[in-house]
Amino acid sequence: MERSPHILENETLDELRLGGMKILQRKDGYRFSLDPILLCAFAKIKPGDRVLDLGTGSGIIPLILGRVTQAARVVGVEIQPEMADRARRSVLLNELQDRVEIVCGDLRGEKPLQGFSPFSVVVSNPPYRRLGTGRHAPDSERALARHELAGGIDDFIRVASERLAEGGRFFMIHLAERLVDLVEIMRLLRLEPKRLRFVHSRAGEAARLLLVEGRKGGRPGLEVEAPLYVYEGDRYSLEVLKIYGEEDPEGGL
Amino acid sequence: MERSPHILENETLDELRLGGMKILQRKDGYRFSLDPILLCAFAKIKPGDRVLDLGTGSGIIPLILGRVTQAARVVGVEIQPEMADRARRSVLLNELQDRVEIVCGDLRGEKPLQGFSPFSVVVSNPPYRRLGTGRHAPDSERALARHELAGGIDDFIRVASERLAEGGRFFMIHLAERLVDLVEIMRLLRLEPKRLRFVHSRAGEAARLLLVEGRKGGRPGLEVEAPLYVYEGDRYSLEVLKIYGEEDPEGGL
Repeated sequence: MERSPHILENETLDELRLGGMKILQRKDGYRFSLDPILLCAFAKIKPGDRVLDLGTGSGIIPLILGRVTQAARVVGVEIQPEMADRARRSVLLNELQDRVEIVCGDLRGEKPLQGFSPFSVVVSNPPYRRLGTGRHAPDSERALARHELAGGIDDFIRVASERLAEGGRFFMIHLAERLVDLVEIMRLLRLEPKRLRFVHSRAGEAARLLLVEGRKGGRPGLEVEAPLYVYEGDRYSLEVLKIYGEEDPEGGL
Repeated sequence: MERSPHILENETLDELRLGGMKILQRKDGYRFSLDPILLCAFAKIKPGDRVLDLGTGSGIIPLILGRVTQAARVVGVEIQPEMADRARRSVLLNELQDRVEIVCGDLRGEKPLQGFSPFSVVVSNPPYRRLGTGRHAPDSERALARHELAGGIDDFIRVASERLAEGGRFFMIHLAERLVDLVEIMRLLRLEPKRLRFVHSRAGEAARLLLVEGRKGGRPGLEVEAPLYVYEGDRYSLEVLKIYGEEDPEGGL
């Protein structure tokens, strides 16, 4: 117990059903949502993959992928030192430090990823809201995590393209309303969109989010998959329960 | 009876439940599918609209829109003289000649639409298959209707943009796999994608088609609507039956 990483007074230690994972989150700061979990379920990670997560926040994505896939290495980049530190301690709490690493820095700069060889996969659940839209959360931790204050959609896609090996895969979740910007920039930066899935809260409603897979240097040709519905009535849909591991706890993602 | 347009030996006169419409089709040529009907149901036509249909084929779209909307005028352009002639006779058979006009010519040229003032709406159900993909139907009427022999996706979108008034609406149905090309070219040609709907054969299957609405000079901002499912089990879905007017024959589209 003495050797386990400390938990600050303003933090909670939450347990995810998902592989029995533990994660530290600030009580009143940004807390992860369903979105990174949907992204992890959408991303196809192969044994031996080298994965980079852009804007990792609490480290939820590296923690999940480190736990439930056979990726050789998962690196998360986070601009906020306090969040990066918290993510690092979560890595230790889950004893994933051999394969999962959290790097602190601005992904738009050269520094944080200096020395890393190209990745086979880049994932990202970036801030959704454009500068000047919506209300900025009064707290700066939440503001940075929700708004494009530290990089817009184009920064994230540019860095993904730069850091991927040729033929590498890019997985992102974003607002459905940004579809056109997203695929336009992806194609421009040689991350050809190959797979697309829309996330609707319920059947019969408009899509709220999209999941997209791109391939660096890939040829045009897109599959638009069956939609994902989050709720059935007032409860999570069977598919979301399965993703959470509620139906088959041994099955991982 | 003597005054009604003639029906050639190689033609059939088919009746659509949809507003009691009649349509001439060649027995062994191109026969329309569900797709133009889905497009007509997706397009929002207002009273007084001036509508242009690019690649009108048998005239199915102008015939439907002339019948079930209050468009002031509907003009269809068709490159194949035999099909244009057949579409014209269908217009007469439905007594729509005061509001519906079929023009024969290559939409890529200046000629066919010379003298027409800008339209408020352009619709199109163009050929889907790229040159060199799939087998070309041995018959040239079918080949022209199915393959991009007489204009690719970019020609159709360019002409739509040229012929639309500022603020005008563009409605197209195409293969879901062409999504990225479509929205990229639309934005490039100032037809900003505003509404998108995917058509799946059945729930749980990938999308086969997409329906898109663009607005000339519109601002970015897209709604991805609930998907349309064509079948429920072995039967048409309730929504498709409604579109066909099976549920409520008086309701039009």
